[in-house]
Amino acid sequence: MQKETVSVGVDIGGTNTEVGIVRNSGEIILESSFRTRDYASAAAFVAQLKRVIRAAWQQLTPGYDCRGIGIAAPGVNRDGTVEAPANLDWGKLNLRQLLGEAFGCPVKTINDADAAALGELTYGAAQNMRNFLVITLGTGVGAGVVVNGQIMTGENGLAGEIGHTIVFPDGRPCNCGRKGCLETYVSANGIRRTALELMASGVYDSSLEGLESANLTAEHVTEAARHGDPLALEVVERTAEILGRALANAVALFDPEAIFLIGGVMQAGQVLFVPVQRHFNNSLLHLYKNRVRLMQSRLRMNWIGVLGASVLVNGRKGREALFAS
Amino acid sequence: MQKETVSVGVDIGGTNTEVGIVRNSGEIILESSFRTRDYASAAAFVAQLKRVIRAAWQQLTPGYDCRGIGIAAPGVNRDGTVEAPANLDWGKLNLRQLLGEAFGCPVKTINDADAAALGELTYGAAQNMRNFLVITLGTGVGAGVVVNGQIMTGENGLAGEIGHTIVFPDGRPCNCGRKGCLETYVSANGIRRTALELMASGVYDSSLEGLESANLTAEHVTEAARHGDPLALEVVERTAEILGRALANAVALFDPEAIFLIGGVMQAGQVLFVPVQRHFNNSLLHLYKNRVRLMQSRLRMNWIGVLGASVLVNGRKGREALFAS
Repeated sequence: MQKETVSVGVDIGGTNTEVGIVRNSGEIILESSFRTRDYASAAAFVAQLKRVIRAAWQQLTPGYDCRGIGIAAPGVNRDGTVEAPANLDWGKLNLRQLLGEAFGCPVKTINDADAAALGELTYGAAQNMRNFLVITLGTGVGAGVVVNGQIMTGENGLAGEIGHTIVFPDGRPCNCGRKGCLETYVSANGIRRTALELMASGVYDSSLEGLESANLTAEHVTEAARHGDPLALEVVERTAEILGRALANAVALFDPEAIFLIGGVMQAGQVLFVPVQRHFNNSLLHLYKNRVRLMQSRLRMNWIGVLGASVLVNGRKGREALFAS
Repeated sequence: MQKETVSVGVDIGGTNTEVGIVRNSGEIILESSFRTRDYASAAAFVAQLKRVIRAAWQQLTPGYDCRGIGIAAPGVNRDGTVEAPANLDWGKLNLRQLLGEAFGCPVKTINDADAAALGELTYGAAQNMRNFLVITLGTGVGAGVVVNGQIMTGENGLAGEIGHTIVFPDGRPCNCGRKGCLETYVSANGIRRTALELMASGVYDSSLEGLESANLTAEHVTEAARHGDPLALEVVERTAEILGRALANAVALFDPEAIFLIGGVMQAGQVLFVPVQRHFNNSLLHLYKNRVRLMQSRLRMNWIGVLGASVLVNGRKGREALFAS
């Protein structure tokens, strides 16, 4: 009997790492995840990742063949090296080499936001689009950009770092060593920082003040906003204004058909999406009005990166052509 | 005897319109220009453009055949329509149709900044580059972007409007009806506005105060800076800071091999280019340091758009493939 070939997709996020065994149809038949930050060194992280992949394979019946491992990671290079990502204190690390040696199968790597774009292009609402952006809002903030039907990787595979565009000169200090990066305002931690700033101002009443500030998360904020908390609503409003403007600026540069918002922060749903959409529309240059759609993904939250990474190695015609490397 | 085929390149700028008859080698064998703003209506402008093109042909010996007319214009659409460009008060105007009817030859149109990128790609220092940006700094500010060796036109042919990215929320009013656009700070008029603001502050001495403010231009400012004028030097410094940061932000999005600065404002030369380069390098995310070059064009100032526009119709293999339309 012929075995079905499946692919392993890995999505290394600043908070969690997801591993999935993915059919060519996009169905994830086996999944596992662990906390990225529990592994302080690159070596410990890689050892854990190998364990999880092996364990997943052992759970599968012998009816499957593996095409390879696709890995999405922040700031990954063309040759498979993760190079000092701003949110992971690991130094340099060649994932392609380390995993390839361990498993003896093809290993390909892709920037996390590019993986999300590839996921949308292959399995999501962007299947018939040629120009679109996927914005990942989580621990970090990135953009996967599709131009003329191709992933825009840039000259060094480092395109799409929208989180590190400076939106306020001399603004909030960023992990990257500079100030005022978009990420410091609209990432999960950026939302937390805005909430703490507004608490410090003493102007707003809030149920969030009952929490120890060390425990406060973006999820608490958006959950409180959903229940009408005045401070939380103001945090959402400020976040939406900054993000909406940044997205309108991206439209002026890329003239896309659509922008998808994904990532942990977007688990907030309508309470955040609706004000972002309002500020986005208000900030758009007249030329682009009614020509670009701001969208949430139809794909399963948190697994878009795994889906996109799996496409790297699954041999689907036309998709591999997206990558020069 | 076989005639040599040449192309007409037209570059419609906010201030001047240039017309050139261009060999396939990139040599401009006949040129003419007139002030765009002298023609208050679209009809009067088109009539003048036809006269200039006819006159140019009549000057040429009968040894030439024309391949067609390529036109670069701000904010031009895929179908050849100029749609309410922010700096020209003409309403809608279909250049392709109007010129095509008049001359009975192929007429193609291209965004002015895309024309500049095509000029650099065909005849300039970008001939072997696959990812680069050309920033036009003149009456308006735009970007021609090449991604994976192709001009990025966007979904509606409206990509690259970097001049209309908002860099200061609630900043200077812009012709586009919004506030804080990059163009209001680093275009020729933006430089003039900064000079007038600094004069109003009364903090700096300046030889420019001898000029009537209505007559003050960006050229006066950069010329004064070249002679050490304190106010003019401060204007250049502020312009360079805002532009340098915007370019560093563009690198984070596009990861290009190079950025070329062209346009009337860059006639200032080193007195502006050197501080822009300094601010650019200071603003760059560490990932991109030493990976991207900021460059001035080697092509003839003011004629890059004409060169690029002429490529649209000159039939050089491989270049036409850049355009889906």
